[in-house]
Amino acid sequence: MNNTFGTHVALTLFGESHGPEIGCVIDGLRPGLRVDEDYIAHRLALRRPGGPGSSARVEKDPFRIVSGVWQGRTTGTPLCILIPNTEARIGDYVNLKNTPRPGHADWTGHVKYQGFNDPRGGGHFSGRLTAALVAAGAIFLAALRERGVRIGTHLARCAGIPDRPFGDLETDLDALERASFPVLDEARGEAMKAAVLAAAAEGDSVGGVLETAVLGLPAGLGAPWFDTVEGLLSHALFSIPAVKGVEFGDGFALAELRGSQANDPFRMENGRVVTESNHNGGINGGLTNGMPLIFRTAVKPTPSIAAPQRTLNLATGEETELRISGRHDPCIAPRARAVQDAVTAFVVLDLLETP
Amino acid sequence: MNNTFGTHVALTLFGESHGPEIGCVIDGLRPGLRVDEDYIAHRLALRRPGGPGSSARVEKDPFRIVSGVWQGRTTGTPLCILIPNTEARIGDYVNLKNTPRPGHADWTGHVKYQGFNDPRGGGHFSGRLTAALVAAGAIFLAALRERGVRIGTHLARCAGIPDRPFGDLETDLDALERASFPVLDEARGEAMKAAVLAAAAEGDSVGGVLETAVLGLPAGLGAPWFDTVEGLLSHALFSIPAVKGVEFGDGFALAELRGSQANDPFRMENGRVVTESNHNGGINGGLTNGMPLIFRTAVKPTPSIAAPQRTLNLATGEETELRISGRHDPCIAPRARAVQDAVTAFVVLDLLETP
Amino acid sequence: MNNTFGTHVALTLFGESHGPEIGCVIDGLRPGLRVDEDYIAHRLALRRPGGPGSSARVEKDPFRIVSGVWQGRTTGTPLCILIPNTEARIGDYVNLKNTPRPGHADWTGHVKYQGFNDPRGGGHFSGRLTAALVAAGAIFLAALRERGVRIGTHLARCAGIPDRPFGDLETDLDALERASFPVLDEARGEAMKAAVLAAAAEGDSVGGVLETAVLGLPAGLGAPWFDTVEGLLSHALFSIPAVKGVEFGDGFALAELRGSQANDPFRMENGRVVTESNHNGGINGGLTNGMPLIFRTAVKPTPSIAAPQRTLNLATGEETELRISGRHDPCIAPRARAVQDAVTAFVVLDLLETP
Amino acid sequence: MNNTFGTHVALTLFGESHGPEIGCVIDGLRPGLRVDEDYIAHRLALRRPGGPGSSARVEKDPFRIVSGVWQGRTTGTPLCILIPNTEARIGDYVNLKNTPRPGHADWTGHVKYQGFNDPRGGGHFSGRLTAALVAAGAIFLAALRERGVRIGTHLARCAGIPDRPFGDLETDLDALERASFPVLDEARGEAMKAAVLAAAAEGDSVGGVLETAVLGLPAGLGAPWFDTVEGLLSHALFSIPAVKGVEFGDGFALAELRGSQANDPFRMENGRVVTESNHNGGINGGLTNGMPLIFRTAVKPTPSIAAPQRTLNLATGEETELRISGRHDPCIAPRARAVQDAVTAFVVLDLLETP
Repeated sequence: MNNTFGTHVALTLFGESHGPEIGCVIDGLRPGLRVDEDYIAHRLALRRPGGPGSSARVEKDPFRIVSGVWQGRTTGTPLCILIPNTEARIGDYVNLKNTPRPGHADWTGHVKYQGFNDPRGGGHFSGRLTAALVAAGAIFLAALRERGVRIGTHLARCAGIPDRPFGDLETDLDALERASFPVLDEARGEAMKAAVLAAAAEGDSVGGVLETAVLGLPAGLGAPWFDTVEGLLSHALFSIPAVKGVEFGDGFALAELRGSQANDPFRMENGRVVTESNHNGGINGGLTNGMPLIFRTAVKPTPSIAAPQRTLNLATGEETELRISGRHDPCIAPRARAVQDAVTAFVVLDLLETP
Repeated sequence: MNNTFGTHVALTLFGESHGPEIGCVIDGLRPGLRVDEDYIAHRLALRRPGGPGSSARVEKDPFRIVSGVWQGRTTGTPLCILIPNTEARIGDYVNLKNTPRPGHADWTGHVKYQGFNDPRGGGHFSGRLTAALVAAGAIFLAALRERGVRIGTHLARCAGIPDRPFGDLETDLDALERASFPVLDEARGEAMKAAVLAAAAEGDSVGGVLETAVLGLPAGLGAPWFDTVEGLLSHALFSIPAVKGVEFGDGFALAELRGSQANDPFRMENGRVVTESNHNGGINGGLTNGMPLIFRTAVKPTPSIAAPQRTLNLATGEETELRISGRHDPCIAPRARAVQDAVTAFVVLDLLETP
Repeated sequence: MNNTFGTHVALTLFGESHGPEIGCVIDGLRPGLRVDEDYIAHRLALRRPGGPGSSARVEKDPFRIVSGVWQGRTTGTPLCILIPNTEARIGDYVNLKNTPRPGHADWTGHVKYQGFNDPRGGGHFSGRLTAALVAAGAIFLAALRERGVRIGTHLARCAGIPDRPFGDLETDLDALERASFPVLDEARGEAMKAAVLAAAAEGDSVGGVLETAVLGLPAGLGAPWFDTVEGLLSHALFSIPAVKGVEFGDGFALAELRGSQANDPFRMENGRVVTESNHNGGINGGLTNGMPLIFRTAVKPTPSIAAPQRTLNLATGEETELRISGRHDPCIAPRARAVQDAVTAFVVLDLLETP
Repeated sequence: MNNTFGTHVALTLFGESHGPEIGCVIDGLRPGLRVDEDYIAHRLALRRPGGPGSSARVEKDPFRIVSGVWQGRTTGTPLCILIPNTEARIGDYVNLKNTPRPGHADWTGHVKYQGFNDPRGGGHFSGRLTAALVAAGAIFLAALRERGVRIGTHLARCAGIPDRPFGDLETDLDALERASFPVLDEARGEAMKAAVLAAAAEGDSVGGVLETAVLGLPAGLGAPWFDTVEGLLSHALFSIPAVKGVEFGDGFALAELRGSQANDPFRMENGRVVTESNHNGGINGGLTNGMPLIFRTAVKPTPSIAAPQRTLNLATGEETELRISGRHDPCIAPRARAVQDAVTAFVVLDLLETP
């Protein structure tokens, strides 16, 4: 039960929000994969704040790869990425140790680590660490691309406003790779941004739903028990801060259907077994069936809000009012999309590499 | 990526639907736990068919513990449970190898195992193997009970009909431990049964939503990244056949709320830190916060339906009509509740045992 | 830290000496491997007592494969082997719980399991469990044979008497596959047997050294750190009861050489990189180099001896004299050879299957 | 099969000899352990060259802890240590890619990583990485010390010259903690140094045997199968470059004894169960028995020697003469002692932390 995940391709995450550096070690990569630092920078930019009302804290993410790459290619030995925490402002967070933020890990982390954890900015629990996941994810996404596998995530709902559903997946994934605000319908995206700003103006925040498609997977990946594709993906996806639900294919809506509606009939298409519909999201019996892998995550509203909140003063045991200073994203779902792509790429690459 | 799961308490599952025996090996149990064979039989009975329109195939589950127990208590060494497959009827399934059932693992299993898997009754993918999970789960549930932890699951929705929400959890869990049909409101349960029978009469099936509560957990279990409580539980829960979604606390509904609504304020109650509401389902930052752990799974409608379905004949590549003989539950959600309790108990015990 | 081992091919061992059955579950086998029950029986026979002065307890090992095999081939799903404990005689061991046998796990097991472990015949610590390893090993050895990899072990020393060194390895391994007493020089084998009988006549026991050769491995298996070939093999080999040392190539003798003597120069032979000598036992930098893999284990003398020994009565804290009844092998090294082959085959197959 | 090891306390190692930085991530440490940077520097100094004829390359080891420590104590979250490679001289190693050094991983690494590994100075296989192990080991040793566990290693043999055996272990371990040349008898140490210099003068190298004692362990650590104390320790010890053998207690000498000599009788001493002798090195049945844990490793002579050696030119397939430039330790065993302490501390702490 620790900060390493993965069967064959394994990732170890380390660092604290206000420590000198965060980073990760990736093990089990094939030797010879090209490592494109510009693409890593591009993916980090997709995670960076900058959407409507987003945190004014400019996070530049200069990163260094200190091992596992030689002459521009992976060596096959552990690859360590380091990202310095250059612009953190410590003063913003001084009052968190005794007055835990509702909806955050301040209190649970204090209990687990017996008060020794670094409380500044959430410490090791901080969303800041997802920068290392995104940097690693760029390497995974590029490795998958070489094998014909593509991944993209859109903001399917935000502040109650739906994006249009996925259509032609190749086209939609092309658009998402470039989009700074990850929607398929720009007009709906503008409506979402307005709703986010409206919440922010009230000192509040909103949530959303992120939907991901993975194209190009062969059939037969995964395992019947425990290491089902759903199980492995969800295990990793719940590490994305604020994710509180994961559903595959039609997910919870499947519970309302009849079997005759939910089953995806098999047929042959160009010599390949396909299913006519994809209610099961590309997975049967825990294994990929060769159809697009489709899933959604529920992202709760940012717990750090400007409006005053009630909490406890742990030192005195009294209730108190908490005002969170600093600037916080009123909706993290748009940025979380880069993390969801990264985490998905990690699990999918691991599935492909594990015999 | 194999059939063993768990960090400290680990479970290995084996067997095929129509092989001589299925079973599991549990490792990492504390020495000295009482093993109550009657309680194992009780939990197996909760999983057994017998609900409305359920499979007429009477599954008696005589089980044997062949290791790891001495003088009625766990030894601390691996505990192996075996359950013979006494009443399987092989003839019912002969046509599955070439005509895969839509919504099942017949085709994906064939691809993964290169045609060598046992196709009878779904082989290793069969829901039959959950009997071994339920038997193991009885041991886990009893071990948790000794430590003040209780688990219960109700059918929160079935065929579109909602059960009443959880109320007083101690009382509700007492009732569920005894209930053969796992609802909190019997009238709604009768309506569900009628809806299931109506679907069955049309050769069809229905799905449902299972909601679980875990009481008595200390704060601080879990880990910040990867081994979050949500991640560990969902990883295991997706092994329950037909589960396609998992959500914690308010889950997907959280995506529609504002931060000021979703955050659970801390306060002190009898010298203990609690939260006023429980929108986060007892988990903050991936760690338990000491409140009841609440989650729901989406159970899709049974894919085996009596009505004819289109599929492929893999030998010829032609489309064909499949008629599944044998008797199948028109809704597996009521039985799956025993599996959900078992899987939850497994993960929760592992969380408690892992430092 | 439990009874499962292996990265991709994993084995879980369970059972107690005097329980109803012992067994193991093998996961991660390729689908389609032939399973030859006669060969399993042959390997079990090599492990069976019957050498000079060996235990008169006739262990017949009827085994059942209850999962993971269909139509004579592996399915790729977990394979469970069960071996009943048919002829155990419980009375022989009743006094072990309070008077631990020197050199055995009676006392350490009692401490670890807080007195709840099954003490009869050593319980879960019993060498009896190696029967399950040997049965599994037969499947591993056959799978390796199909890939051109062969394994054999001889008794390089016994009671101070050396066997002749390995010569032509193909020939020697052929001979060992058939040999019931595993020596390369029969005359020396007769001398060993006489020495064993002499020790037995004095109520005593002797030890030995087992030397193994593995042929046909490709270069490049293993890992630089932690999962070195030496590390993985030794981890598993120390599970063979009574093994107290492992050395690769010239092993401890290398500590006495100079670098100019110990280095194995590379040269080309039939278009293949080879080394002129093999002081490093086929391993450079933790990875196989394509030369024969050679290692030795030190097997201590059987701790169960007929002569009276001093020990403690744990109930009273007084020193007492222990007389071990029952019949025990005065030297287990000849039988342990079958276990060493099995364990080696397990690790080597896992190395080959792990990318 | 990757660069992470450990069950509860886990260590991930990364870096290459001539990359910018090497390092490691330690996960699973308890929160609140004091981290003493001076003690880390002291342990790194014990590993540094400087013995007789040792490499003139002065390795200063400035290290940085970038995560997992706050206010001088462990936080309980992953602790990352980085050590820059400040003084590497790249020119020394340019010819290794095509002319692999006998006894080194140059060729096997080339095969495993398909030619993409960093060949400079052995890359990821370099003994340079043991600096990160030693730095981590200082934290483990300090954590053990707080729990009453002590570890020390002496050079039991070098160039055929024996040190005196361990005597009073507390005293001997005190002396070893301070000793820059790790012997118990200084006169013998001087003789060893002279022998090392004599070999170096001939362009050659020598090996040795390192013997370790661990004091203060409780009985009952370890597991009966696979995760025996011997298995876990040897798995890790074979990561020390040049180690080719591991033996516990009397090790290979046990194979020459009779059972009546090898068994360690139990008796009571000050209310504690002890054994009269310690031929089994503090381990019975794979579990600690509370006596001092004693083991030895065989360290082969440094494969990098000044004298010319035959090898292959891989580009042409021709035999060629290799002259290794740069300065290399004619005996690495004295420095390896710091690594052996570190690796032992890692495994022992993991054993203590794993329930």
